[in-house]
This record gives sequence, C-alpha cells and structure tokens, in this order.
Amino acid sequence: MSLVERVLAGDRLALARLLSQIENEETTGLDDLAALYPHTGDAHLVGVTGAPGTGKSTLVNKLVMHMRQEGEEGGDADTMIAVVAVDPSSPFTGGAILGDRIRMRDLAGDPCVFIRSMASRGALGGLARATAGVVQALDAAGFDVIMIETVGAGQAEVDIARTAHTTVVITAPGMGDEVQAIKAGILEIADILVVNKADIPGADNTLRALRATLEMAKPERYVPSLPQQGDASIERGEEADSWETPVMATVATEGEGVAELIQAIEDHRRYLQASGEWTIRERGRIRSEMEGLLRDTLAARFLERQPDGRFEEALEKVLTRSLSPRQAILSILDGEDR
Amino acid sequence: MSLVERVLAGDRLALARLLSQIENEETTGLDDLAALYPHTGDAHLVGVTGAPGTGKSTLVNKLVMHMRQEGEEGGDADTMIAVVAVDPSSPFTGGAILGDRIRMRDLAGDPCVFIRSMASRGALGGLARATAGVVQALDAAGFDVIMIETVGAGQAEVDIARTAHTTVVITAPGMGDEVQAIKAGILEIADILVVNKADIPGADNTLRALRATLEMAKPERYVPSLPQQGDASIERGEEADSWETPVMATVATEGEGVAELIQAIEDHRRYLQASGEWTIRERGRIRSEMEGLLRDTLAARFLERQPDGRFEEALEKVLTRSLSPRQAILSILDGEDR
Repeated sequence: MSLVERVLAGDRLALARLLSQIENEETTGLDDLAALYPHTGDAHLVGVTGAPGTGKSTLVNKLVMHMRQEGEEGGDADTMIAVVAVDPSSPFTGGAILGDRIRMRDLAGDPCVFIRSMASRGALGGLARATAGVVQALDAAGFDVIMIETVGAGQAEVDIARTAHTTVVITAPGMGDEVQAIKAGILEIADILVVNKADIPGADNTLRALRATLEMAKPERYVPSLPQQGDASIERGEEADSWETPVMATVATEGEGVAELIQAIEDHRRYLQASGEWTIRERGRIRSEMEGLLRDTLAARFLERQPDGRFEEALEKVLTRSLSPRQAILSILDGEDR
Repeated sequence: MSLVERVLAGDRLALARLLSQIENEETTGLDDLAALYPHTGDAHLVGVTGAPGTGKSTLVNKLVMHMRQEGEEGGDADTMIAVVAVDPSSPFTGGAILGDRIRMRDLAGDPCVFIRSMASRGALGGLARATAGVVQALDAAGFDVIMIETVGAGQAEVDIARTAHTTVVITAPGMGDEVQAIKAGILEIADILVVNKADIPGADNTLRALRATLEMAKPERYVPSLPQQGDASIERGEEADSWETPVMATVATEGEGVAELIQAIEDHRRYLQASGEWTIRERGRIRSEMEGLLRDTLAARFLERQPDGRFEEALEKVLTRSLSPRQAILSILDGEDR
C-alpha cells in the first residue's frame, strides 16, 4: 500500500510522515500531495488568531473537546477535527513543542483528533507554503474541521485568514484601548470576534468598544432601515448575502460560551455556502498559493542557472553602495534576460 | 533643483513626496531612490515591536522627545530622528492615520523629527519592500536615528527585525504567562527587551520570568566561569564580541526608564560597530531585500510574457481539483521554460 493510499485509509502514522515530508519540502511528499489533491475541498477551514495572553490555545482545546462531545451526544460521532498550530514568530527554538505538550494532555487518545504544531522555517513564505500543504493533506485525509491556530497579529495572520474559510479573532479585556483595537486592524479580517476571559472586570467595556469599533469600521454593513413587512423572501435573501460579524464572550477555562461559538462557526459555514462566498474564498486562497509557488519556483530556477557567485558579487556592490538593490537585481536579470 | 537634490538639502516637502512615490512604487520614485542610495548607510536603524496594548507608541514618542532634549542640553542639538510606524495588520482602512494624529500632537513642530505611517498595501511582500525603500530615503536624507515601529508579533515583525540594526521588543505585565512568552519566540529576536507599564502590580514577576526565559532560551550566552584577574584585554574583547540582551523596566507615561533605554540603544550600536556585527546585519538585510526584489521582478516579468488568461485557466483547474497548485504552476512554467 502506498503512503497516499494509507493516508486515505486513515493511517495516522502515514499521515504524520507525509506532513513531515511536506514541511521539509521533500519531492516525494510534494508528489504525494499532488496525488491527494483531488480528495480535498470538503473540510471547513477555521482560522483562529489572537495576541499571546488571550487564552487562544485553551479556547481551541475547549472547542475541539466540545465538538467531539456534541458528536457523541447525538450528532455525528465521527466528526474528525485537526488542529494546526502555527507559530510564525518562532523561527528559532521549539516553543511550539512546549505549547503542544500542554495541549496534548487534554486531547490525547481521541483517534478523531489530530494535532500538528508548525514553527516558521526561516525562509520568507516558507511557512505559508508549508501550512497550505499540511492543511491540504489533512483535508484529503478526511478531517471535517481543520483549525489553523496562529499566534500574533501581523501580516502572517492576515495571510492565514486568507487561507481559512472562517476567521475567528480572539481578544481579551485589557489588551489595549479602542485606538489600539482599530490600529490592530486585524479586527477587520474577523468573521467572528471573541472576547475571551469575559469574567475579568471590564470585559463589558471591551465588548462594547469592539462592537462600536466594528460598526465604525464597516459602515457599509450598517442597515439603516427596517425590513419591510411581508417581504420575507427578500429578507431571507439578504441574510445569505451578508454576514454581521458577531462579538461573542467566552470564558475558555470554564467552557462558557464555547457551545455558542461552535454554533457561530457552523452558521458562518452555512452562510458561506448559501451566499457563494465559499467559492470566492477558495479561489482567493488558491490564487495566493499559486502566486507564491510561482515566485518561489521562478527564483529558485533562475538562481540555479546563474554562474556561481553572481548574486554574491552584486550583493557586495550594494553593500559598498556602488549599486542600489534595485539596480543590482536589474543588472543580474538583464544580463540573462534580454 | 531635482527632487533628489532637494531631499539631500533637507527639504521636507520633497522628502514626503518621494516617500509617497516609493510607497506607490512609481518608477520616478524608484529611480530617485537609486540615485540617493550612495548617501545611505549612516543611520542607526532601530526596530521597535510589541503587541497592541503594551504602550509601544507612547514609549517611542517619549524616546524621541528625550533624544531631542538630550541633544539640546549639551549633546548634538541637531540629532535628526525619523519614526516609521508600520502596521502590517491593517491592509484595509486608515488605522495608522488615527494613531498618527495622536502622536503628532506630541512631536509636531520639531523640524528635526519626521514621522511616517505605513499600512500594508495588500500585496504580499509589498510592505516590506516599501518599508525598506522609505528607510533608505530617510537614511539618505540625513536622519541619524530611524525608528521602525511595528504592531504585532508575527512573521512581519521577524522580517522587520532583520531590517533594523537594533531590535527593541516591548511587552507589559499581564500580557501572558511564561509559556506564552516562550511561544511568542519573538523574544529571541530582541536585542533589548522592555517591560513597559512597570508600575503595574506584578511587573516584578514579569521581569523575573523574562530574564529566566532568556537564560533558558539562549544557553550559549551563559558564561559559567568568572573572568580571570588581570586579563583585562580579553575581558574587553569579550565584551565587544557578545551582547547580553538587557531586560529593562519603563513607565512610558511618566518617562521612567526612558533615559536608560536610550543609553542601551546607544550601547548596542557601539557593540555592533566594535564587533563587526553591524556589517553582518547590513549584509543580511541587503540579501533579504535583494531576494525579495528578485522574486517579485521575475514573477512580474514572467506573467507579462504569458498569453492572457493562462494563469486564470490553470487556477480554474486547481479549483475543480483536476490539478494541484504545484502541478498547475509547473505546467505553466514548463510550457514556457524548457
């Protein structure tokens, strides 16, 4: 049985091996991923992001446990959930591994839950590429929900939001005033906004401030007139065509608000599918992945063709200020390209 | 007088216009930047990063005000300082502008201070490229210290740390426990670590935890044996060859610890220059900028040569799962490349 067949048959060891090959960009792994690609497209990709200290990992653990329990209590007992914990700010040592161990205590032993930690591999764009590959493999392996958890609030998170169908942004009381919240801008990529640690005094203010900020930031979502009576069909149509970002309160450590958050995630999936937004997001995601691949492949092939040291020579000229970076690159390119 | 000459002569209006052209990647701006490039290399680039809510902007304002006052009180009264406030998580609306107005109240009117806000422009890598260009222009325009302030703790911040000579990471008490601090990993890019809001109860614990974390994370910096007596020359040499990341306490709103932080920044510059690390960082910075330019330029030129719709056709095939993203890109490339 090939590795691909074993992954499709649900072999977890085979899956783990494949994910490592994808992360290391081994050719066999990338070929296997291509063979698996026709089996992708069914998973609901849920991005979860927020600054350190918001209790994000705890909330993700609770979401997974609750989703699994819900399944056992009447729903689909075989709901398969994967968590990809991405730490773009940790290119150096094994921070993710430590976090991973803590979360493993809660979720270990459930064969329908799979957890994978990923740290940045140094190369710009390398993490985004590896994450996309890992998510595709998990999708093909039959996971119904794939949570992509990232630390931080930077460009990497915006990129990952583009990867997911549904983006959940987590904050906590006292993480900054309203100006900071606007500045963080990341609110604007949120499909669902969560104030965790909602039992801390002042949480009400945070909830209010976020709701006000959202209303200010997205005036186009504001609906000034009441729906006309007896116009139910239009009203229902509108419901599918627009999504009001909910601002939800949770206390992850106590499990409070977790069921409601799962419901909101599920509502958002339904909205995406009903409105056609699902396909739009898929297309955007694939476009961005293909563009990244194109740039990387072109650059790698180009540098392979260069005589040894050509790039380094140009670099030295920039270092001594006899060429600007742009002039140096154009000189290399036009030496070959014309 | 050309725009380049005016920028070199200290014309602020000309500088602002040039920066806009660089941000918009206008050819004239990029050509002017190349003409200015021989005048770069003197500025001390100081990256300042930290999560929202740490009081980062307030601290940067205080640093600038204090540096200016120090100048007037005896040092170099003409120390010119630029602040580039980068908001990688705000690709959508004018969050940076709001923060900018608030900071302008404190610093407006000083001709030796120049502030520029930048928000992400959507395109991956676009912000890093634009920031590099803006910093080069400010360097050529004669600014002695250029502070590059970023929000967040993600890949973008790691990239910006690569841009700066000296990276200051700001945190605050209660922003997360030690595991989070390790996970954030960004500590490891810090040349100077600051706990702002050090008057909050519990700040001592944060300071202790960070010092312990740093010691754990960087065992190679731990010096187990005492220096031998009478061996002053070796001792001094060692001082230049290694840098112990200081963990400093500040209360930006009260100006506490600001003078000490400025001293640490200055010490780090001296260390970089004495140890040769300055040139190593310059080379790394230039390499990363050139690699980015190479990838962008190759991709742009390649797509220009493609028949209309070729990329889109491939994208549709990926969307319907008849090709994987990698297969699609290789099919486009090998159609032309071989």
